[in-house]
Amino acid sequence: MRRKITVVGAGFVGSTLVQRLAERDYADVVMFDIVPNMPQGKALDIMQAGPVLGFDTQVTGTNDYADTVGSDIVVITSGFPRKPGMTRDDLVKKNQEIVSQVTEQVVKYSPDCIIICVTNPLDAMAQIALKVSGFPRERVLGMAGVLDTARFRTFIAQEVGASVRDVQAYVLGGHGDTMVPLARMCTVAGVPISQLISPERIEEIVQRTRDGGAEIVKLLGTGSAYYAPSASVLQMVDSIMLDKKMIMPCAVYLQGEYGIHDLFVGVPAQIGSKGLEKVIEIELNPSEREQLTKSADAVKELVHVMGI
Amino acid sequence: MRRKITVVGAGFVGSTLVQRLAERDYADVVMFDIVPNMPQGKALDIMQAGPVLGFDTQVTGTNDYADTVGSDIVVITSGFPRKPGMTRDDLVKKNQEIVSQVTEQVVKYSPDCIIICVTNPLDAMAQIALKVSGFPRERVLGMAGVLDTARFRTFIAQEVGASVRDVQAYVLGGHGDTMVPLARMCTVAGVPISQLISPERIEEIVQRTRDGGAEIVKLLGTGSAYYAPSASVLQMVDSIMLDKKMIMPCAVYLQGEYGIHDLFVGVPAQIGSKGLEKVIEIELNPSEREQLTKSADAVKELVHVMGI
Amino acid sequence: MRRKITVVGAGFVGSTLVQRLAERDYADVVMFDIVPNMPQGKALDIMQAGPVLGFDTQVTGTNDYADTVGSDIVVITSGFPRKPGMTRDDLVKKNQEIVSQVTEQVVKYSPDCIIICVTNPLDAMAQIALKVSGFPRERVLGMAGVLDTARFRTFIAQEVGASVRDVQAYVLGGHGDTMVPLARMCTVAGVPISQLISPERIEEIVQRTRDGGAEIVKLLGTGSAYYAPSASVLQMVDSIMLDKKMIMPCAVYLQGEYGIHDLFVGVPAQIGSKGLEKVIEIELNPSEREQLTKSADAVKELVHVMGI
Amino acid sequence: MRRKITVVGAGFVGSTLVQRLAERDYADVVMFDIVPNMPQGKALDIMQAGPVLGFDTQVTGTNDYADTVGSDIVVITSGFPRKPGMTRDDLVKKNQEIVSQVTEQVVKYSPDCIIICVTNPLDAMAQIALKVSGFPRERVLGMAGVLDTARFRTFIAQEVGASVRDVQAYVLGGHGDTMVPLARMCTVAGVPISQLISPERIEEIVQRTRDGGAEIVKLLGTGSAYYAPSASVLQMVDSIMLDKKMIMPCAVYLQGEYGIHDLFVGVPAQIGSKGLEKVIEIELNPSEREQLTKSADAVKELVHVMGI
Repeated sequence: MRRKITVVGAGFVGSTLVQRLAERDYADVVMFDIVPNMPQGKALDIMQAGPVLGFDTQVTGTNDYADTVGSDIVVITSGFPRKPGMTRDDLVKKNQEIVSQVTEQVVKYSPDCIIICVTNPLDAMAQIALKVSGFPRERVLGMAGVLDTARFRTFIAQEVGASVRDVQAYVLGGHGDTMVPLARMCTVAGVPISQLISPERIEEIVQRTRDGGAEIVKLLGTGSAYYAPSASVLQMVDSIMLDKKMIMPCAVYLQGEYGIHDLFVGVPAQIGSKGLEKVIEIELNPSEREQLTKSADAVKELVHVMGI
Repeated sequence: MRRKITVVGAGFVGSTLVQRLAERDYADVVMFDIVPNMPQGKALDIMQAGPVLGFDTQVTGTNDYADTVGSDIVVITSGFPRKPGMTRDDLVKKNQEIVSQVTEQVVKYSPDCIIICVTNPLDAMAQIALKVSGFPRERVLGMAGVLDTARFRTFIAQEVGASVRDVQAYVLGGHGDTMVPLARMCTVAGVPISQLISPERIEEIVQRTRDGGAEIVKLLGTGSAYYAPSASVLQMVDSIMLDKKMIMPCAVYLQGEYGIHDLFVGVPAQIGSKGLEKVIEIELNPSEREQLTKSADAVKELVHVMGI
Repeated sequence: MRRKITVVGAGFVGSTLVQRLAERDYADVVMFDIVPNMPQGKALDIMQAGPVLGFDTQVTGTNDYADTVGSDIVVITSGFPRKPGMTRDDLVKKNQEIVSQVTEQVVKYSPDCIIICVTNPLDAMAQIALKVSGFPRERVLGMAGVLDTARFRTFIAQEVGASVRDVQAYVLGGHGDTMVPLARMCTVAGVPISQLISPERIEEIVQRTRDGGAEIVKLLGTGSAYYAPSASVLQMVDSIMLDKKMIMPCAVYLQGEYGIHDLFVGVPAQIGSKGLEKVIEIELNPSEREQLTKSADAVKELVHVMGI
Repeated sequence: MRRKITVVGAGFVGSTLVQRLAERDYADVVMFDIVPNMPQGKALDIMQAGPVLGFDTQVTGTNDYADTVGSDIVVITSGFPRKPGMTRDDLVKKNQEIVSQVTEQVVKYSPDCIIICVTNPLDAMAQIALKVSGFPRERVLGMAGVLDTARFRTFIAQEVGASVRDVQAYVLGGHGDTMVPLARMCTVAGVPISQLISPERIEEIVQRTRDGGAEIVKLLGTGSAYYAPSASVLQMVDSIMLDKKMIMPCAVYLQGEYGIHDLFVGVPAQIGSKGLEKVIEIELNPSEREQLTKSADAVKELVHVMGI
């Protein structure tokens, strides 16, 4: 029997993710949205690419949570988008209610699923999903670090004229202004970037990474990024579906790791068929550790705002 | 040196096509649009998926045709979209001017390119592109038949519970209400659908195929299809870039084939590195031939409306 | 949990199949052979391509059937190869004993698996596997028709200068001198080959298809084909693993279809997660039906020779 | 026009490489061997997988160098294989003559090609190819480091239970007993392996990497590795064909870099459409530098043996 993945929210991140999942051909996909007919229309359009691209994925657009029953993975993308000038933190109250309601329905129909939260502000929303679902932390993940890292790697590759495949990097911390790009550990084909790029230029790239989402929001004029975000979720889904046990920066519920307790923060995590399989603790220097703590504090503040 | 493909128009068909081309990794891609900053934003978002998906395509968003210089292939997607209730034919005057201006600029910077026209009403717009460019017919193609055929195949596969890969079909004629799905030649794993589906049901599916674009427009509420259309253009680009010499229904400028003269109509065409390499003439029965003639007449009428 | 596929026999068909399966990354793979150390060496070599190609498949080479425990699919490739001058029929006695012993061990460790038999003479060996396993016919398939059809399509594509993707064809019957290439139903982009190729030339291509295996045996000097055979098995495994429900010519145990009883013969079959999901009966003309009967008689004779 | 790649030598490394290149579908492929008919047979077998896998690559098996005319890339795999108990160095005299003759023919028919040498002892054979061809060093590369690194990464991934994609590593130096796996720079998801694996165990893995080829030779009983070697060449070809500018360890002709003059030694190299585009000099510690010098000395000795 083919496996089943549900994507909640048929906005651009959601529907582009469904497009990517359909092309994988390893699971049937349900796309839920509250807007009538729209997810059905996008699902039909996505499926009609099947004969050309060679996939047979059954894509179901729906306004009824009952169609999501028995999903192996549920990705939550619902929520108000970030508008120009809006900080990620402004979104918290607007989206808290949405993610709570979505999570209730998801759990009702797929009690054994793994949840991947994408709604912003990411870390706070993942915290809501964990609380409402009552799931163990292994089955509630947040997507942010893969995207932030992809942006960092893109900028570095362009700077030095290398293939993106050759740039290794990590961005830890919360998904917001306090994120922590680990420039010290960033390498191009194994060569530390400190040997390739001036400190001033590195600092500019680090800052551009922090502002990565806002840069695109500003350029687009209306709406926010969705191509790289959907690809980033795909990587997490792949590692679960194929049990690849890849290590990537994800928002996970820390319980003492990195000295952080009961909070979602982005750290390197090994992802496999069981969801979170291992938190990887890498050695940070005092400055990095301080930044991570500061980032965690920012998440804690949001959680406080939400009153949970 | 990497080859170069330009997509004019960064709406959803255009930008989803750029996404698909970027993932191919076989050419650098330029996305032009007149809206300031927007193509730059989409290009950045698309490229930031590169580190995750493993591609190194340089994607350039631009508002300046000079950046398209020396392209091997140019895909024209610019134009007003079809709105609910609007026929494809209503679009003709609105889009004639756009395609003319675009073609002039394209030819100025890429005099040796192959043009693929996607703007609707497709056949009429391809005719404009041919006239304005002064290119030989080998280098001006229109995308419609691959999409119409993909829709037809999807519906048939769903009807009989088969893989889309096993459904062979053809939709000829103009891209509009007069298109000609060749139900007689449609097979599922070699079995004619007349042995699998009742005549009444086949007729319903044929009609649904004709209304395929409108069905999605209606479901979406706002906007029109872009996932399957962009995949369909990709197939044409692939066959050119990799010189695959695949045969697929395309709008090509007929010069006597099928008894049609000096008109773009959808027929099976062999596509390779030179563009149109051969028009394939398949034997039609009198009814099919009549439908094709009627479809050609509808295109001729549009061409007349445009006054060219 | 990752799924599991076992390939019995680490000759060139077996190990090239393991290479292809490893690159799929959707299941762990066990390669069994009686030759000590050799499957372990090939498995190691195949896995060492993983970092370059990006797959994480665990490939286990073994001389112990216990390592095959709990496989979802088992492909049997063991047996003496066909030597120059040897007919497929000469192999029957030599390979009957091998396939019997292999099947016993396979069933012992993987009682719920789907068996795909590749050993020649194919149809007779599948019959042995069915009998020894005691499995229902849904779970014992033979690979021959996909390969024979691929050869036929290759020759036709070369003849007319088309893409192999555009050639549809079927080869039915037993895998041997009596196979039945259905030239009448072969099309290039929907155009019957009778409109493209002379009858004499078609007959030559049909005969070349029948001799397809022997042609390669003769050219190689030593050994027989393995690249196309392993790709053909891959297509069957894909349709099972991903439940694609593709229709392809396979050797299946007929129980009245095509007027044939209790015999493995190549016919179009729909393949999905349950194995054989449906035998597709296509309308044959009297000549084709006669050829199919003759081909079935040849299989029956082999079965008689084996005394089962 | 499709581009053209020639593979000289249709042994297992050569023909498996041709299989991989054919599946890429981006160039036509010629496979040359002096054995009559054999390359033709393998080419036919490889092409017959096309209809199943969807590629249209024209694969030509030949015994005539004239068929290689105008190749963009030529891969030389010809030579006697390493037998059990034989050191790589023993091969030098046997293979010097072969590579000289092959190179002469290659240059005659493809004076503008990029040569990738795979024949062992690799570094010495690349030196021969450079000298005989008279090509600039940009167009003569040797494949060894990608393979050695792939083996190192595989062993590390297995040791710590990680995805091979998460293991970064480098193996420099000559391809032989003196190769230099840079354990100090090896990381798993950015974590240095010194934090994950004991020094003793790392040393064992380093030694196993050095003996990687011999381990497989011993297990196979007859013949040597070809799956991972052919994948490694593919990565180099990809980076050239698609101008990916990837950095990977290759045997290149050093002219002062790393303090080494006029000698092929494995170092990180950026590979693009022009061949070698840049030698990457990474900072080595004294011990690593000493090992690299020792490895270069071993290559120098072989070059001396060859008398060039």
